[in-house]
Amino acid sequence: MELIDGNQIAAAIIAELKTEVAGLTGRKPCIALVRVGDDPASVSYVKKKEKTAAEIGIEGRIHLPPVDITQEDLFALIDRLNADPGVDGILVQSPLPKHIDELAVFRRVAPEKDVDGFNTLNLGKVAQEDDTGFVACTPAGIMELLARSGTDLKGKHVVVLGRSLIVGKPVALLALQKKAGANGTVTICHSGTTNLPSFTRQADVLIAAIGRAEFVTADMVKPGAVVIDVGINRLPDPAKKSGYRLVGDVHFASVAPLCSKITPVPGGVGPMTVAMLMQNTVKAHRLNPRR
Amino acid sequence: MELIDGNQIAAAIIAELKTEVAGLTGRKPCIALVRVGDDPASVSYVKKKEKTAAEIGIEGRIHLPPVDITQEDLFALIDRLNADPGVDGILVQSPLPKHIDELAVFRRVAPEKDVDGFNTLNLGKVAQEDDTGFVACTPAGIMELLARSGTDLKGKHVVVLGRSLIVGKPVALLALQKKAGANGTVTICHSGTTNLPSFTRQADVLIAAIGRAEFVTADMVKPGAVVIDVGINRLPDPAKKSGYRLVGDVHFASVAPLCSKITPVPGGVGPMTVAMLMQNTVKAHRLNPRR
Repeated sequence: MELIDGNQIAAAIIAELKTEVAGLTGRKPCIALVRVGDDPASVSYVKKKEKTAAEIGIEGRIHLPPVDITQEDLFALIDRLNADPGVDGILVQSPLPKHIDELAVFRRVAPEKDVDGFNTLNLGKVAQEDDTGFVACTPAGIMELLARSGTDLKGKHVVVLGRSLIVGKPVALLALQKKAGANGTVTICHSGTTNLPSFTRQADVLIAAIGRAEFVTADMVKPGAVVIDVGINRLPDPAKKSGYRLVGDVHFASVAPLCSKITPVPGGVGPMTVAMLMQNTVKAHRLNPRR
Repeated sequence: MELIDGNQIAAAIIAELKTEVAGLTGRKPCIALVRVGDDPASVSYVKKKEKTAAEIGIEGRIHLPPVDITQEDLFALIDRLNADPGVDGILVQSPLPKHIDELAVFRRVAPEKDVDGFNTLNLGKVAQEDDTGFVACTPAGIMELLARSGTDLKGKHVVVLGRSLIVGKPVALLALQKKAGANGTVTICHSGTTNLPSFTRQADVLIAAIGRAEFVTADMVKPGAVVIDVGINRLPDPAKKSGYRLVGDVHFASVAPLCSKITPVPGGVGPMTVAMLMQNTVKAHRLNPRR
């Protein structure tokens, strides 16, 4: 069994981006990071993104509107960032307060600055295999993990567990593309699937993104499978100082021995999302006619 | 075995639309039909669409630019139709001459008038389960055939054969939606799939859209399956006056006896596409703020 090391692969991508940005003449890439309110997880995520941007040489502009900002005012902020020629990418940190329509906010970001890849047009481009768009960071990160760990999906059966808009569907569309490394046969299962283990057991490559702690057990995995665990769940653990431990959607201890390759949680898909956000930002800068 | 009669179902939809349009006050729905050149199949398709529109009470405006129109001039025509408040829907008949970038033309049509559903934004809306967009006519027609023949996809394994942008991918996304009638578990197979029959044989519902005459044979189908045949292929047949006969992607004679339900070719999916185009046009009119 080989562990797919997301920290190492993310670090390699960040190093490549740093070299690329160092070689740029003129204005450096710039990402606007918008965080509404002070949700502790959001504070930590945005800090991490800011730090990684700085490491690469990407300018990070932080916007911290208060938690009670109206949707109208948040739209106005996004509109200003959309119009700002010095901003290449815009990230609005999720989750947003309940009084704001998150999907509407994501759609407000101009498609050419949508480095999070949540805009409807960019999702359509994934389906159309149009490389001018932006792929959402988690599915893009999964594809990079597979590629850089030497897993070619051609002729393989890829089973995606979960049909979410930000992971399941886009990663299924990516695995299906007529592109080197892709060309998989793809099955998408979900909570409504009858006899789910009969599907997951067929997977040459299993992508677990169902959002349930340790849901995938050994009896659901074919020996020799490649397993990508997208889940990040907290389980109470009195032995930890924090009172909990992080686990994936896969029961790692029993599944890992069966696999040819598997991602750990933490340290698998997680670190990839920030790296892909930075890759998208550098791409947005490259495509920006006003750079 | 029950035959799913596409002619009958399409006629029912057209009758419903006729009643709906008859009840409208004010301007009637209007579709612009653009046919470049005189390709015989296109002439016949556009005539059929014009006739069906008239039957429903939809105004059809025919535009027949010459086969040597430049892409620029075709764009200018589409831009005029996009801006025309009296036009609800725009259909540009495919195929276009080789010197024109077909995908660019489809994308030029304003999303809110894209009754063919080929615009990137409308495909993204299918993925996002956003009903304000337009679903491409063939996949929309397949879903109507299933619904109106009493086939609920919930808990079923839907196997889509073919990953095209206009059939395979959108129908897979539709079958997967969290919506009454959908909620299927979906597998997408294609020409690069290893051991294809092992997948098609699992299908409770098999949607064949691979574009190869009589490709699906009896050994590839599970007894009791529902089979939707999207293919329209010409096979040479000296017994016919035309010199050919139309067949689907399914070997009907051997497969039909196995099925619980199956669509014939012709008379299955084919007639549905025009009905769905009309349904999209009436929807575009309903959503048009300037009607």
